[in-house]
Amino acid sequence: METPDKELFEKVVKIAQTRGFVFNASSIYGGLRSSYDYGPLGTILKKNIADIWWKSLKTSDVKIYPIDTSIIQSTEVWKASGHLAEFTDPMVDHKPTGERFRADQVPDDLKKEDLTEPRQFNLMFETNIGPVQDDNSQVFLRPETAQGIFVNFENVLRTMRAKLPFGIANIGKSFRNEITPGQFIFRTREFEQMEIEFFCKEDESDEWMEYWIQKRLDWYKDLGLKDNLLRLRPHEADELAHYAKSTTDIEYLYPWGWGELEGIANRGDYDLSAHQEKSGKDLTYFDSKDDSKYLPTVIEPAGGLTRTVFAILLSTFQEEQLESGDTRTLFQMNFEIAPIQIAILPLSKKDELIHICKQIEELLMPFYRTEIDVTQSIGKRYRRQDEIGTPNCITVDFDTLDDKCITVRNRDTMKQERIKIDSLVQYFQS
Amino acid sequence: METPDKELFEKVVKIAQTRGFVFNASSIYGGLRSSYDYGPLGTILKKNIADIWWKSLKTSDVKIYPIDTSIIQSTEVWKASGHLAEFTDPMVDHKPTGERFRADQVPDDLKKEDLTEPRQFNLMFETNIGPVQDDNSQVFLRPETAQGIFVNFENVLRTMRAKLPFGIANIGKSFRNEITPGQFIFRTREFEQMEIEFFCKEDESDEWMEYWIQKRLDWYKDLGLKDNLLRLRPHEADELAHYAKSTTDIEYLYPWGWGELEGIANRGDYDLSAHQEKSGKDLTYFDSKDDSKYLPTVIEPAGGLTRTVFAILLSTFQEEQLESGDTRTLFQMNFEIAPIQIAILPLSKKDELIHICKQIEELLMPFYRTEIDVTQSIGKRYRRQDEIGTPNCITVDFDTLDDKCITVRNRDTMKQERIKIDSLVQYFQS
Repeated sequence: METPDKELFEKVVKIAQTRGFVFNASSIYGGLRSSYDYGPLGTILKKNIADIWWKSLKTSDVKIYPIDTSIIQSTEVWKASGHLAEFTDPMVDHKPTGERFRADQVPDDLKKEDLTEPRQFNLMFETNIGPVQDDNSQVFLRPETAQGIFVNFENVLRTMRAKLPFGIANIGKSFRNEITPGQFIFRTREFEQMEIEFFCKEDESDEWMEYWIQKRLDWYKDLGLKDNLLRLRPHEADELAHYAKSTTDIEYLYPWGWGELEGIANRGDYDLSAHQEKSGKDLTYFDSKDDSKYLPTVIEPAGGLTRTVFAILLSTFQEEQLESGDTRTLFQMNFEIAPIQIAILPLSKKDELIHICKQIEELLMPFYRTEIDVTQSIGKRYRRQDEIGTPNCITVDFDTLDDKCITVRNRDTMKQERIKIDSLVQYFQS
Repeated sequence: METPDKELFEKVVKIAQTRGFVFNASSIYGGLRSSYDYGPLGTILKKNIADIWWKSLKTSDVKIYPIDTSIIQSTEVWKASGHLAEFTDPMVDHKPTGERFRADQVPDDLKKEDLTEPRQFNLMFETNIGPVQDDNSQVFLRPETAQGIFVNFENVLRTMRAKLPFGIANIGKSFRNEITPGQFIFRTREFEQMEIEFFCKEDESDEWMEYWIQKRLDWYKDLGLKDNLLRLRPHEADELAHYAKSTTDIEYLYPWGWGELEGIANRGDYDLSAHQEKSGKDLTYFDSKDDSKYLPTVIEPAGGLTRTVFAILLSTFQEEQLESGDTRTLFQMNFEIAPIQIAILPLSKKDELIHICKQIEELLMPFYRTEIDVTQSIGKRYRRQDEIGTPNCITVDFDTLDDKCITVRNRDTMKQERIKIDSLVQYFQS
């Protein structure tokens, strides 16, 4: 399974694009490299995953406070965090043409003597606030949501009267000006993160590290990613980031090999200490248990929302050979995350059938994500619903007019059951 | 009521900041003007409002497709839409100091002969993609979500096999490099929009305009904004934007006067026509009813999410004189949007009471947003819960150990009821 599966990649990307999950950004203008827009189905899928993430943080085990911080923060934030000085890639220029390449991605056919020495290029997007462009107005788009959490640590502590251990969580867009290798929505210039910074006492941090590794791994499994396509990879000492005492990645087996879904790092007090020093503000925690004051240790489970969307599409993709010789394509997504949970299909476009479909939709809409699908043959409509991962199709036929029953088709088994309309809500709830 | 209410403004802003709704962005570094981060309560409130907006679009009346587009789009998009040439403010420089002002906001004490002639300054944030800064790499942060919808019109039409009339909706951040007059989260450089572009036949567009004006006005009322603080304001012919055939604003009476919550505009086919011409792509709709092809007319209900958050805080704010002589401060928010719906307060910190509180939280958590609040006197905790808009407080006392009952206090009436723990879920559901 570790050999690249280019065919799977191409099939999934094609369905994602033709069925309305993901579009190339600015596609009518030829697109913008490494930028994607989410279509109706992708938007719902992404929101469902984000909502399940929020929900998973609402437990009586631990207290997690949500926040939502600005994409543009003061430049002091990035000076303190080290991003301004160190968040860089080495770049070389090709002298004859002026083209610029990442040092490890220079095309083989270029002559070495035509290249400049590598220079560091910062991956943060730079812009200016206010009408004057000068050093004072220079700001950056955040390359991670984490720092927005750290600079609000004291705000949350004070206003929520928070007690250790507790976490602060943020879902939001981050931006990295990367030259990207075309892995669809796995790595994009603009992407969505779901990050938690969990603050605890240093001597309890190993235990919490284990807690979060397990909790987050279980979360991906519950979401529907296949066990054998997930693994934990602790970082070797020599690959640890300068701020991290230990890091374990949750990786997914993408078609090109193992890739990060989430990194769980013990950041010690690196960030709070840096911001305390730079800002001159006291960021210590007063522990009333023993009247001590200290900077908490931070465990950071930092997940990628947009790359989780891609992993779900890849992991739930199925092709089945039917007895007829045809191939059936489906996303075997969980009922909870499927963009459409129940499709309602009239056997014909006759008014009396459409009317019943609308009644059924009114009945189900308060509880489920529904769609009435009218056009094309019933077979083609089943095929489309399979391809977008809809777990159930309801078929309304002419018998329905008499017996007030409809047929429910299951996506995975293709089995059909005849059910009274009156008992439909009950049927789906069980 | 139309005179500025500076006192209300200051009180609400103070509670919002001290109780964890909104913080100044980068506050430990002295803040970044016109930038705010949402604290735990503000984040939940904002998400609740956004979720209710999405839910309101899920009706059997009309079909609305959600999408989620990139903040950075191709520069061609802003050329076609007119933003690159026309989305500007006139600015003047003060020659002796080099300071720059919006032409209509020059301080009175500056001498006219010290000022340059006004020059146009574009309100879009500019940045560069890729490592080379040149004209080809120049891109902008979107100043509105609308254009991301228009450039995806054909993608949605094709992949969803959409039929007129239908809408496309997007919630997301937009950016405007404005010099802002300190109206808290009413006008910020970075803000969240909730926009719908509703595509219909031209001859049905007046009817749909009325439909959306009414539907959106009702939505704000249902959300809890007071009737007498809301009004519809049709634009005069001479204030219409160049793209609009007619516009009606839904306005809220902010402490400084009437201000826009949402603009509902008939944009005709201005945008689709501009993008069709610029991109050379066919953006017409094929109407199978009469085999005609045309560019749909667009009705745009464009709401501000972040300014709705502010309006809710302002509109639900109350101060009450108690018999004791004390003043009680509260946000009378609807149960549906309140960040915490049920607070659980033990009368003392004794283990046996905390234990029951946790059991009650386990019971309620699947259905409601709860919080166990332990510190300070019960009076102070009631006061805090009132101030953050919590509709119900449950008090666990020593009698609870025997009678398995708790006291439910209503925020608005302050009445208390003794309820069996077993019947709590039922109690809140009715």
